[in-house]
Amino acid sequence: MTASRHASLRKGQQTRAAIVNAALEQAARAGLEGLTIGALAEQMHMSKSGVFAHFGSREDLQIAVLKAYEQRFIDEVLKPSLRQVRGLPRLLAILNHWLERTVIEAALGCIWISGASEYDDRPGAVRDELVSMVQGWQREISRAIGQSIREGHLREDTDVNDLVFGIYGVILVLHHDSRLMRSAEALPRARRAIDRLLQQFARVPLPRPDALPQHHAA
Amino acid sequence: MTASRHASLRKGQQTRAAIVNAALEQAARAGLEGLTIGALAEQMHMSKSGVFAHFGSREDLQIAVLKAYEQRFIDEVLKPSLRQVRGLPRLLAILNHWLERTVIEAALGCIWISGASEYDDRPGAVRDELVSMVQGWQREISRAIGQSIREGHLREDTDVNDLVFGIYGVILVLHHDSRLMRSAEALPRARRAIDRLLQQFARVPLPRPDALPQHHAA
Repeated sequence: MTASRHASLRKGQQTRAAIVNAALEQAARAGLEGLTIGALAEQMHMSKSGVFAHFGSREDLQIAVLKAYEQRFIDEVLKPSLRQVRGLPRLLAILNHWLERTVIEAALGCIWISGASEYDDRPGAVRDELVSMVQGWQREISRAIGQSIREGHLREDTDVNDLVFGIYGVILVLHHDSRLMRSAEALPRARRAIDRLLQQFARVPLPRPDALPQHHAA
Repeated sequence: MTASRHASLRKGQQTRAAIVNAALEQAARAGLEGLTIGALAEQMHMSKSGVFAHFGSREDLQIAVLKAYEQRFIDEVLKPSLRQVRGLPRLLAILNHWLERTVIEAALGCIWISGASEYDDRPGAVRDELVSMVQGWQREISRAIGQSIREGHLREDTDVNDLVFGIYGVILVLHHDSRLMRSAEALPRARRAIDRLLQQFARVPLPRPDALPQHHAA
């Protein structure tokens, strides 16, 4: 490959990433179904066909946005938590980052949660991608719960799926109460709810909520 | 008022109710924002101006749909539960009807839950109406919890708002897992989650879930 062909490929990737970034912001406001190539082209000072050149279709763009969102989520929620030791400390770190991110998302608009309403009844590639991402994230939580059981931090008879279900419920109502109800109480309430949920399955005392690792935005 | 004027008023109310009913179905599928006067007029074999004659604006129609939805919800979830004695029996009846209705809604599309995503970021009369309905329903749940405390069924130090928050979380994840994830396990999981949640605050043993009053569709 010649140097200029290489540079042009890299330029193409940068442009694509910039489009995805702008689309991510637009989708947070208007939903994935609210994404329009026209508005995006205008924001990027590009032609519509220029945007289309980077994505085969609007659906491909929506899926690229979901993937970028997932990557950011993993970077902010999962990765910093992996510095904690396996078991309850790591699980608590994940939950803590997730709660904090949900409140920030509640201000911006969480694509996974709004997407659940947009696509629950709309079959197709975007829905399939969204479902598989949620399943992937549920597997990550299940893994951290499983490690907590093996480390002796949670009871052996813990029903992992029931606990994942309970955690998801807290996240969804935190988002609902922060965003629709504009409740400032939602985050402390959600922390107490997670605490009570884990108490039911814990074999060791939970650390005080204020002793949990705090999330520092990069 | 003459008899014919009376009959024509009644006819008008019937037509209005029929339009709201059709709009309710349309909104369950496509969301309140997906409501179009055009599609509605076609379904009702009316002209668009005929539909508009009954509602000042699309927003008025959306609010009428929300009100009809609330009435149905109260009729199906709250009213049959009021036959149970005050305290835990009545609270459990409400929760049981609500869980069952949520699963049915999950097939049809719940206007309150999808509306939360549609309007959380869209100020206006429809959002205000939705928020006030959710608050109204949260007050009903709080009342049943308060009665359970006064009857000595729940602990005196029960944080009513925390318990409402926890219950709402279970309903939201039940809807999410039934509708987006198509999980058949969601309803039994939700029943166990409610059971565990109430155990935390209960002063008396909870009845077995299968002993709870079952909902019979009218």
